[in-house]
Amino acid sequence: MAGPPRDIEALINLMARLPGLGPRSARRAALHLIRKRGALMQPLAQTMMAVAQNARDCLRCGNISTGNLCPICSDPTRGTGQICVVEGVADLWAMERGRTFQGRYHVLGGTLSALDDIGPEDLRLPKLKSRVAEEDATEVILALNATVDGQTTAHYIADDLVDLGITITSLAQGVPIGGELDYLDDGTILAALRARRRL
Amino acid sequence: MAGPPRDIEALINLMARLPGLGPRSARRAALHLIRKRGALMQPLAQTMMAVAQNARDCLRCGNISTGNLCPICSDPTRGTGQICVVEGVADLWAMERGRTFQGRYHVLGGTLSALDDIGPEDLRLPKLKSRVAEEDATEVILALNATVDGQTTAHYIADDLVDLGITITSLAQGVPIGGELDYLDDGTILAALRARRRL
Repeated sequence: MAGPPRDIEALINLMARLPGLGPRSARRAALHLIRKRGALMQPLAQTMMAVAQNARDCLRCGNISTGNLCPICSDPTRGTGQICVVEGVADLWAMERGRTFQGRYHVLGGTLSALDDIGPEDLRLPKLKSRVAEEDATEVILALNATVDGQTTAHYIADDLVDLGITITSLAQGVPIGGELDYLDDGTILAALRARRRL
Repeated sequence: MAGPPRDIEALINLMARLPGLGPRSARRAALHLIRKRGALMQPLAQTMMAVAQNARDCLRCGNISTGNLCPICSDPTRGTGQICVVEGVADLWAMERGRTFQGRYHVLGGTLSALDDIGPEDLRLPKLKSRVAEEDATEVILALNATVDGQTTAHYIADDLVDLGITITSLAQGVPIGGELDYLDDGTILAALRARRRL
């Protein structure tokens, strides 16, 4: 049996380790790359090389950065005393797409999880407490995912920071914009009903 | 708004051009690569570079190769006089996984398609006719997909080669191994019934 040549086999195996790609879609993606080797594969390889060499974690907040501090932490106008806690960099990008929050972030790098044996010392949690003091923060906004692990982590952080005497808030839960009630789960409807507002 | 740094943005945009990845899954894959920059992104970039430099089409059959001829065309034991025509390299790999066919291949690089304006001159079709003569082939096996375009192409090739006096066959159509009749479409059941065999 003559399968793909050895380095193409290696390419397929590496591609299959990306999230969202299985063995079959990795084969398809590899063949697509080989067909477009000049227009896509070479630029992609060069960009990966550059990113692999330059990308690092922001020393302060954990955001992806090309310097010691990320653009948000380097920007003096964003030192508003608000720190928004997110699970990962993808969540930070999602918050930034909202174009509303003007403060800084703190990227935990995951959530507490008893099942996966992830405790507070595995996350960027101790650092958060020291940042609140160093940066004279007045509010910590918990923008964690509305999952069991996310909410467990939010409660843990709220307990941990309660002595500091700052405001601790979390994102509102309710009906998403454009959402139809008929398609929402019972938990969301219950949360939206509990947090109902006077018009 | 502070989105991803510029070269990470470029990485995400290039990843989003892979089949099976959209903007959101490209972001996820890029973040995964950045997290595993030593263990995954650097090896992947190096492998892509190597493949982009070495990969070419086999001059004879169109298979992906690292030399002028692919391993199958270079192997004298595979000159059995049988040429199996496939649409793409992925189909060739699928046939090879079957571990039964001992002849050589001819990769068309697509199918005839009036809608997409793909005619015989856009495929590796003229080359097939000359190969049959050069290699003293006795049988051409049409292993094209059971789609409208695939079957149109198969009929075109069969017509094109009829003067050469060789055997032209195509893969059998019927119930796939492990398939349940209740889940099969009517066309497949009809084809399987028409091609029924005496036990």
